[in-house]
Amino acid sequence: MSEAVALAVDWGTTSFRMWALGPEGEVLCERRAADGLMSAVSEGFEAVLERHAQAAGIGPDVPAMLCGMVGSRTGWMEVPYIDAPVALIDLGRHAARVAGVRRETRILPGVAQRGFAPDVMRGEETKLLGLGREDGLVLMPGTHTKWVRLEGGRLTRFSTFMTGEIFAHLRGAPNSVLAQALPSSAEGPDTDTPAFAQAVRDGFEAPEGIANRLFGLRASWLLDDTPPARTLARLSGLLIGAELAGAAKLHGALDGCCLVGAGPGAEAYGRALDAVGVARVAQVDADICVRNGLIRAARGVTLEDAGA
Amino acid sequence: MSEAVALAVDWGTTSFRMWALGPEGEVLCERRAADGLMSAVSEGFEAVLERHAQAAGIGPDVPAMLCGMVGSRTGWMEVPYIDAPVALIDLGRHAARVAGVRRETRILPGVAQRGFAPDVMRGEETKLLGLGREDGLVLMPGTHTKWVRLEGGRLTRFSTFMTGEIFAHLRGAPNSVLAQALPSSAEGPDTDTPAFAQAVRDGFEAPEGIANRLFGLRASWLLDDTPPARTLARLSGLLIGAELAGAAKLHGALDGCCLVGAGPGAEAYGRALDAVGVARVAQVDADICVRNGLIRAARGVTLEDAGA
Repeated sequence: MSEAVALAVDWGTTSFRMWALGPEGEVLCERRAADGLMSAVSEGFEAVLERHAQAAGIGPDVPAMLCGMVGSRTGWMEVPYIDAPVALIDLGRHAARVAGVRRETRILPGVAQRGFAPDVMRGEETKLLGLGREDGLVLMPGTHTKWVRLEGGRLTRFSTFMTGEIFAHLRGAPNSVLAQALPSSAEGPDTDTPAFAQAVRDGFEAPEGIANRLFGLRASWLLDDTPPARTLARLSGLLIGAELAGAAKLHGALDGCCLVGAGPGAEAYGRALDAVGVARVAQVDADICVRNGLIRAARGVTLEDAGA
Repeated sequence: MSEAVALAVDWGTTSFRMWALGPEGEVLCERRAADGLMSAVSEGFEAVLERHAQAAGIGPDVPAMLCGMVGSRTGWMEVPYIDAPVALIDLGRHAARVAGVRRETRILPGVAQRGFAPDVMRGEETKLLGLGREDGLVLMPGTHTKWVRLEGGRLTRFSTFMTGEIFAHLRGAPNSVLAQALPSSAEGPDTDTPAFAQAVRDGFEAPEGIANRLFGLRASWLLDDTPPARTLARLSGLLIGAELAGAAKLHGALDGCCLVGAGPGAEAYGRALDAVGVARVAQVDADICVRNGLIRAARGVTLEDAGA
């Protein structure tokens, strides 16, 4: 492992992922752990990072580039947001150096949108840097899904929808009026069903009625004994469908959007786009994007350092 | 208290209210307690009712008319819903007699709407009977707010919005992304503010963007240090504004609607209607409505019994 020249770390609220990179940006090894912000606060951020570096055999002279919520107010060090519009290629230059640690450690900034539609991101900007697209609409599913407009390599505008969080509250809160109507296990919605697709269309066509449709899930359970799995799929579909209507209003036609993500969440959004007849250009794995973004940012800094 | 001829009881999930009625329907005494369904399940429904009757000096020969969630699957006895459309005056006739108790005790049915827009109510139908209106749109604020269309004394169509519950989840869940941005105390929103009114208009004009606007509350706290009380008022206003858009889509013009309720919730809806320029015809206290509805239903049964 002597040839590692950089550590790339995606450090979020609940997860830690680290890649050791070779001179050409090639991945020498990868580590994944549940050492998110919560646990890191108690163990100490430097201790967590060094524990993983040591386990991977990476010496203290290899610089590290970090992104994600580690740069937030509740993270290792608060790195000020960069304001949109911003050229993605400039992100690395704004990485902030963590003081008082042996290893040269930098944290990438998040991006803020100020004014009429205030919004923030931390971590997604690095995925966008790694995505390598210059233009178009990018859909990044998550608990707080982001729709991002790219123009000429610049991130010009974005909108976060807390659809996934609303779903989680209604799905999981024991005092939710929907609790009895939903599966008692922790299973996720089966989005590969006509019930999901129809609910997406219902939410998309009448987003203003969403709070009524949601209560309708309970009524339908009471009156028609709707199976819990079907109700769960409809809950997810209604919320995502309403979001698609909102995104279309804010960003214009959704056709040609690029879906960045993997797993059930990205699948759900992909199927939701299909349900309302939106053609997407590609689905890209978010892990690969964030790794490539960190590599780009790290290289940018290295080049800049070399030129300085 | 020897002249009491009936007990009227509004028995919900969290509250118990009882009125002893004289021969002309006059209120002889009133009792209010937190003996909702939750606590009644453990003490026993009959025990709770008799404890309150005894405390009020009402003998076991006085019949009781009950309404609310006490007639639900998780209540004393499940009383089948009556299907809408339904003539409100017929409700009393469908009250179900509780078996195996000394006191003659009846529970009023709820109302179900089947088909395309499944919906249910339990308790509101009794308020509507007591409201004494024959026609028009009625707005009944609550955790699950109801919009009800009356036509010629019949309840023809209604829509429940779970706006209040969504508010409660986002307001109270410790893992809500809005938790830090909101007041740490349990205070409710100040709806007598320009921030509330503007948020109502924002939600009303772009209900499809609600999940985005909600995340914007967090962003606005992070970027602009928005005061928590202002964020709370906006949270409430956005959700209610979106509901008003949904209600207008489902029920047509909201002008002339009758607001049934009292307290902060009804005030919030009243101010929200003002904010979007909807003129309401009246605001009626829900307590008086439910009491009058129970009286009407009890009298209907008494008359019917006499005629039989």
